[in-house]
Amino acid sequence: MSSHHIVRDDQEPALIIANGETCSAELLHQLLEWNPLVIVLDSAISRVLELGIKVDVLIGDFDRDFDYEIYKDIQYPMDVFKIEDQNSTDLDKAIQYLIHKKIPAANIIWATGRRMDHTMTNSTNMVKYQEKIKLVMLDDYSKIFPLQKHFIKWYPKETILSLIPVGTVEGISTKNLKYELQNDSLVLGFKPGSSNEVLSDGLVEINYETGYLLLMECND
Amino acid sequence: MSSHHIVRDDQEPALIIANGETCSAELLHQLLEWNPLVIVLDSAISRVLELGIKVDVLIGDFDRDFDYEIYKDIQYPMDVFKIEDQNSTDLDKAIQYLIHKKIPAANIIWATGRRMDHTMTNSTNMVKYQEKIKLVMLDDYSKIFPLQKHFIKWYPKETILSLIPVGTVEGISTKNLKYELQNDSLVLGFKPGSSNEVLSDGLVEINYETGYLLLMECND
Repeated sequence: MSSHHIVRDDQEPALIIANGETCSAELLHQLLEWNPLVIVLDSAISRVLELGIKVDVLIGDFDRDFDYEIYKDIQYPMDVFKIEDQNSTDLDKAIQYLIHKKIPAANIIWATGRRMDHTMTNSTNMVKYQEKIKLVMLDDYSKIFPLQKHFIKWYPKETILSLIPVGTVEGISTKNLKYELQNDSLVLGFKPGSSNEVLSDGLVEINYETGYLLLMECND
Repeated sequence: MSSHHIVRDDQEPALIIANGETCSAELLHQLLEWNPLVIVLDSAISRVLELGIKVDVLIGDFDRDFDYEIYKDIQYPMDVFKIEDQNSTDLDKAIQYLIHKKIPAANIIWATGRRMDHTMTNSTNMVKYQEKIKLVMLDDYSKIFPLQKHFIKWYPKETILSLIPVGTVEGISTKNLKYELQNDSLVLGFKPGSSNEVLSDGLVEINYETGYLLLMECND
């Protein structure tokens, strides 16, 4: 294996499969094709193995008398990390593992749906890693990612874009949205920027000054 | 109809059926039994009528060429309010309607799941009404409500309670939780209070000084 190959491997994104609602088989298989390293959280391993997926890493606190040893044999070779730390979620642990391994990007699925505390914590926690790893969370209706202070991307007309502040975001200006923001602020719970849309085929630009902002591309 | 009856009616909670994921028939029918006034949001009306539910009020912006006139006849008598206001969601419009009608409390279902922008906005927006109406959002896994500054309630041992700050919450102290907080702060995206649990059968007390806090009772 050449060093070139190792570098390339490290630059490919990982796929984290969390423990929320299962996504469509179509989305799952698309992501598996492009994400060579598969990390599964805690007891989701049983649902993942039923789908015949090869798992590389299993991470969790395994706090509900969950016997992960049996999966070590079934999935050999698979790295297993039991990390007990009440200040981080299983998803945090997986992201921290990837940062430690210098993996530059990860897609995250099964992290929404079912328990709302997990859904809320999983999606908003992404912002704290935005300087260290590129994260995208996907389910059958939504694609969610933290926005850097300056964001620019091509979208087709009428794409629904929701700007969801994680707390308070100030100094937001946009270009090519139906409800344009000009040095505005968004406040979660009071003034979120949900269900905006792209004005015309072309580049959308979003800039902001302070705070943490998630972009959600959603569809019914 | 006596005036006593009218007062009692107004004190009974309403049920708002939003446009997210359908909940279990069991939860739906439990709530229908205790919530005499049923309000449905926008195009959810078609899914609701399929279930044979009598709807009292239909509210929405009906912005997707949705023909609500046909439902007026089918569901007669039913009040229909078409409210076009891009600064409020359909759920906001329904809550504001109830506040205007002096209804003191509402349960909200089908407001989570599916599109994550709606899920996030619907659940966090509840905090802005907490001085005006008592709101509880329910789905098959979660019961979510805004916490007043001083909260006390009896819970059985090991009940999972998640304290989710909508932004930053300061000066939080708790009694009878496994991971006790003492004049602590919680910050969404950085330090949420997810997956705490009740220490022993009895009263749980949560007090905080500033910010907005949701309590989530969740189960897998």
